[in-house]
Amino acid sequence: MKRRQFLQAATAGAAATAIAAPAIAQSQPDTRWRLTSGFPKSLDTIYGASEAFAKYVSEATDGKFQVQPFAAGEIVGAFQAADAVGNGTVEMSHTASYYYVGKDPTFAFGTSVPFGMNSRQMNAWMYHGGGIDLMNEFYAKHNIYALPGGNTGTQMGGWYRKEIKTPADLQGLKFRTAGLASQTLARMGAVPQQIPGGDIYPALERGTIDAAEWVGPYDDEKLGFVKVAPYYYYPGWWEGGPMLHFMFNSAKWNELPKNYKAVATAAAAYANVDMQSKYDARNPAALRRLVAAGAQLRPFSQEVMEACLKSANELYDELAGKNADFKKVYEAFRAFRGDQYVWWQVAEYNFDNFMIRSRART
Amino acid sequence: MKRRQFLQAATAGAAATAIAAPAIAQSQPDTRWRLTSGFPKSLDTIYGASEAFAKYVSEATDGKFQVQPFAAGEIVGAFQAADAVGNGTVEMSHTASYYYVGKDPTFAFGTSVPFGMNSRQMNAWMYHGGGIDLMNEFYAKHNIYALPGGNTGTQMGGWYRKEIKTPADLQGLKFRTAGLASQTLARMGAVPQQIPGGDIYPALERGTIDAAEWVGPYDDEKLGFVKVAPYYYYPGWWEGGPMLHFMFNSAKWNELPKNYKAVATAAAAYANVDMQSKYDARNPAALRRLVAAGAQLRPFSQEVMEACLKSANELYDELAGKNADFKKVYEAFRAFRGDQYVWWQVAEYNFDNFMIRSRART
Repeated sequence: MKRRQFLQAATAGAAATAIAAPAIAQSQPDTRWRLTSGFPKSLDTIYGASEAFAKYVSEATDGKFQVQPFAAGEIVGAFQAADAVGNGTVEMSHTASYYYVGKDPTFAFGTSVPFGMNSRQMNAWMYHGGGIDLMNEFYAKHNIYALPGGNTGTQMGGWYRKEIKTPADLQGLKFRTAGLASQTLARMGAVPQQIPGGDIYPALERGTIDAAEWVGPYDDEKLGFVKVAPYYYYPGWWEGGPMLHFMFNSAKWNELPKNYKAVATAAAAYANVDMQSKYDARNPAALRRLVAAGAQLRPFSQEVMEACLKSANELYDELAGKNADFKKVYEAFRAFRGDQYVWWQVAEYNFDNFMIRSRART
Repeated sequence: MKRRQFLQAATAGAAATAIAAPAIAQSQPDTRWRLTSGFPKSLDTIYGASEAFAKYVSEATDGKFQVQPFAAGEIVGAFQAADAVGNGTVEMSHTASYYYVGKDPTFAFGTSVPFGMNSRQMNAWMYHGGGIDLMNEFYAKHNIYALPGGNTGTQMGGWYRKEIKTPADLQGLKFRTAGLASQTLARMGAVPQQIPGGDIYPALERGTIDAAEWVGPYDDEKLGFVKVAPYYYYPGWWEGGPMLHFMFNSAKWNELPKNYKAVATAAAAYANVDMQSKYDARNPAALRRLVAAGAQLRPFSQEVMEACLKSANELYDELAGKNADFKKVYEAFRAFRGDQYVWWQVAEYNFDNFMIRSRART
């Protein structure tokens, strides 16, 4: 090759590089995000969803898009995540939207409301019932875009020092809970407290509170509640299928190239199904261990359940009367829920019913 | 710049390009795959899982990794997908592993076995109970690697021209079903037929078969069964939580770069939760329309359920006695299932129970 020919070839190569390079830069920009979790690292289930999300995002982009999870308290506290995401302190969070009912009760629908829906029904509402769009229309007012990011399944109703036999036993009960369960129970005379997962045990041990609900057997066992409050009630009627979320700062989300949005959306779905699966896989053995350790399983009485349902419905009517966002989401949520149980009671419920009754013979 | 300097710079640029180019080629190679679905395009739920998978894979890789779905029959028939994937005719499939019980009954556990697990429990077994690894150890013998790719939830028990009141009514019944339900029912005197979704209606209309089960209200409505067989039974005890799969040719899967594996794994999880959600969102209204169109809802009697459970257990013992793979998976599956209902009967079942009974007041 003559010098001139080589030079031309080299120049052509450089030109090709000059064209190709920006395309690569646009499609896979180096991106480093911080995620603040609402949970402590000790809870591998719920904190693990952040790790699963980060892992898939990094692997899918060959490390070009990296998300670093931080436990609650490392950057901001468990209940400051929505603010931190909205104001851009961090790019994203893994949290429960119902922690922010103090800002606006409409946040509750993203996670769970008393007598709401179960885990699968929440997914159905979110992915194919308009829930993702409806909630994001609301979250946008707080500079947040959110995607489903896990579920615990129906939670337990919590740990109590004394038995709860009638609604009167809720009077004056200092009870750790979250979301609209607090207002539902306050209307019945209880004294609800919102305390992060990592701080509940000391409060219960010191007697600052009388009872506490967290999640279910596997997480509750780690937090040690059985040692100080042995009556373990079910079901957690305020958390039939509580959903967690990946919350993104709206501007940061909108700046992502389309491929990173697809990666993040699929990774969130992976974390969503992965977290529910982990809870379901771990809970049975944990329940057995808790019972062996002295947990006294108790169903809430029909009388207590009915009184709580009445209180929740009154609360919904009151909130819908003074908050247009709440009213809009509540009406959509309620209609969807009503439909869901029309179908659920047929095949699904009857299959489970037969399997439960026949367990010894399967 | 002097000519020599420019030449050196250009050469350095070319060298840099020469280093960068293979790295790009390795991490995002242009990849075009064909996916054969086991289902017709008319079923937007189940066929839609292939489309959701393909969409996320393409978007996440900026179109570098593209998967083209084909309906059953376009490349190979509905029941040839496992062979086509195993021998490399296509790179992948979206199918139900239990279509291949004729090759080996162990295939059944990937989808559903009579009196198996519900949808969430199947996910729990797969993602966190060792199910994915255990099934892939078996699939590897057929050159297949598989990931969960959707679920329908508990199916209906099918459409019948005449009522099924006792086990005797199953005698001689020509019934379209799939998986180990066929052998369970054959032991009770029925005459099961495996027919692809698109061909069931004509068979039922012509009287080639007496009854047929497919999925549930939304899909069944599309296939038109209510017009020819009005008794609509529940629950589909052989499909408590039937899981679909993305099956990959093992060699093709192993050749994928790590980032494409992550993209495909997350996209499969997206399709998994998306498909279940779509069924759950669409089924209630379809059930109402079917009842309005004349469907006669009937629960299987306790006597029929008990007789079928007995037949299924006998079948499992027989198969486990002569097939080591079946025995290994059955024992793991059975232990996991037993544990699952220990927990399910506490919080989850009691929440659903209360919600169903209180539906008019929520």
